[in-house]
Amino acid sequence: MIPAEAVARLRLARTDGIGPVTFRRLLGQHGSAAAALAALPRQAARRGAPLTLCPEGDALREMDALRRLGGQFIFAGEPPYPPLLDLQEDAPPVLAVLGDPAALAGRAVALVGARNASAAGRRIAEELAEQLAAAGLVVVSGLARGIDAAAHLGALRRGRTVAAVAGGLDQPYPPDHAGLQARIAAEGGAVVAEAPLGTAPLARHFPRRNRIVASLSLGVVVIEAAPRSGSLITARLALEAGRELFAVPGSPLDPRCRGSNDLIRQGAHLTESAADVLEHLPEAPRAIRLFEPPLAWSGAEPPAEFVVESHEPAGDATQVIDLLGTAPTAVDEVVRRCHLSPSAVQAILLDLELAGRVEMLPGNRVALTGQA
Amino acid sequence: MIPAEAVARLRLARTDGIGPVTFRRLLGQHGSAAAALAALPRQAARRGAPLTLCPEGDALREMDALRRLGGQFIFAGEPPYPPLLDLQEDAPPVLAVLGDPAALAGRAVALVGARNASAAGRRIAEELAEQLAAAGLVVVSGLARGIDAAAHLGALRRGRTVAAVAGGLDQPYPPDHAGLQARIAAEGGAVVAEAPLGTAPLARHFPRRNRIVASLSLGVVVIEAAPRSGSLITARLALEAGRELFAVPGSPLDPRCRGSNDLIRQGAHLTESAADVLEHLPEAPRAIRLFEPPLAWSGAEPPAEFVVESHEPAGDATQVIDLLGTAPTAVDEVVRRCHLSPSAVQAILLDLELAGRVEMLPGNRVALTGQA
Repeated sequence: MIPAEAVARLRLARTDGIGPVTFRRLLGQHGSAAAALAALPRQAARRGAPLTLCPEGDALREMDALRRLGGQFIFAGEPPYPPLLDLQEDAPPVLAVLGDPAALAGRAVALVGARNASAAGRRIAEELAEQLAAAGLVVVSGLARGIDAAAHLGALRRGRTVAAVAGGLDQPYPPDHAGLQARIAAEGGAVVAEAPLGTAPLARHFPRRNRIVASLSLGVVVIEAAPRSGSLITARLALEAGRELFAVPGSPLDPRCRGSNDLIRQGAHLTESAADVLEHLPEAPRAIRLFEPPLAWSGAEPPAEFVVESHEPAGDATQVIDLLGTAPTAVDEVVRRCHLSPSAVQAILLDLELAGRVEMLPGNRVALTGQA
Repeated sequence: MIPAEAVARLRLARTDGIGPVTFRRLLGQHGSAAAALAALPRQAARRGAPLTLCPEGDALREMDALRRLGGQFIFAGEPPYPPLLDLQEDAPPVLAVLGDPAALAGRAVALVGARNASAAGRRIAEELAEQLAAAGLVVVSGLARGIDAAAHLGALRRGRTVAAVAGGLDQPYPPDHAGLQARIAAEGGAVVAEAPLGTAPLARHFPRRNRIVASLSLGVVVIEAAPRSGSLITARLALEAGRELFAVPGSPLDPRCRGSNDLIRQGAHLTESAADVLEHLPEAPRAIRLFEPPLAWSGAEPPAEFVVESHEPAGDATQVIDLLGTAPTAVDEVVRRCHLSPSAVQAILLDLELAGRVEMLPGNRVALTGQA
């Protein structure tokens, strides 16, 4: 990729309101990020919609900072971007990577579980990760305390491991895992981040981190997960992405095992050792099934009295908004129900996304964000 | 039942070489145990086969001894014999019972598991048994140390429990469970034994005890069972008898959970609480499936050089023996392959069973015992 296009891709990805799905559509429409950047202001101005592109200087500064950190950007659709992640329609357009991006190309399995894991759970994670690494698999996890850290450490003994983090690469989290992050990068593995450098890892970033963990892997193994825990969300994301699901059983007396036992009850492979994983790990993900609504995007319930108050778009846009809800709706359905052309609807939806009013979702669907 | 027939049934059941399947056939052929006892010596003499009936005095003495112990005999096909057990073609023709035989008529679930169970396993067994008893179920187990005892104790707090024992009722096993056996009988439950009074519980009696535990119940819950343990045999017997199978999950680090985790992998219901059992416990057993060979009867492999040496039956009997092996064979198949009438084959097989050479099995099948 020519450097100018790399800068343009980073600028487009860092522009507020351009989500991964819209990024892919713009790249398809315009042929390059540079062309999309050139076209967007005209388009926004024509509709009177707000738009602030990420300044070129900001992108260049971030590239420079990442280089000084020893990292590099990789771009969806271009090697060495991880091929399994690239299958996801909402894959990050740009990933910041520390370490060896080649680690992202290996057959991978994710190990996730409780941050407050028991000593036994940590030991299981460490041994399982070591066995899986010894069998040639890359072990993916989220650099968190507990199961995540144990999995990374076990894999480091016999092979490569990949960590996906929620914040920027210069903000290791938890802070005392900075050394672990550095070891992963130094010992043949990789650490990847969707968020820009300088981003503090906030609660809202973790669903995206979990989705990357699941998407990098052919299967996800859950070890100790309480009901409604983040690990169960990763499990659900893995199923949605056609990944194989594994769970380690545990005593009914330990609440940390309820969620993982539940997964087994629902069909996850009962896993006691690497053999159980190797037996069921496929060569490729299954065809992707979309749930309504996908868990990653199902935010809070819409407020009881959801009233559009400010920046009210007039006419056609209002007509489109009236057809939407916070639950995902198919764009085709919107086109059928309003009396506008498909391209007019797409243009309105782009404006609304740039304004933060809607979110474009995989499967050509769209949902209100709840912001007026 | 008139007292004379009760005595005759006990004599027939206590006659060496008359197994439960043959007992049922003889009862069907002759109409009563008394008539069978009268016919057997003539039949044996005609064929020159050995036969020693249990003397009437022995049967009367055992009845008296059981009465003095506070117990009673119950007979297959006659209330209060437990109806679920009666469905099994090889159910014990006679059971010695301490306590209230009415406990044998209730909807029942078995809890079985490791004798060397962990403290956590015992607690799970005790709580689960108590919850199931509180829900109105009778909890069945085998009076052993560990899970069995915990299950009986938990059930005693809220309802009835039934113990099936391997030896005679006057030989509680383990000996320090004599008090538990007495409590079960005194507090509305029942203790049942197939073996005659005075029988020391030997290893070879436990498969029959396990079969009774499984057969008394609509479902079997396994809590902590190592691979190749007796509890897994009970689980297999339960499946063979069309019973529902449940298993409590446990840590892969505990070898005592390998067998139970394996059962879940093979389709047993993952069980964390009584709700999991109640949800899947059926109203009646499923249609019985027969495996080849059923585990209860699959003894050691036949010796490499199995030679018929002594008491060699002549002619027709030899022809029948040549068609048999230690693996079960359908009697119909034997009839088809030799040139004898069905009734002649049945008579020969009866002689061979009385001589200890063959064993009649459920499903009208027969196998060599390996004794010449």
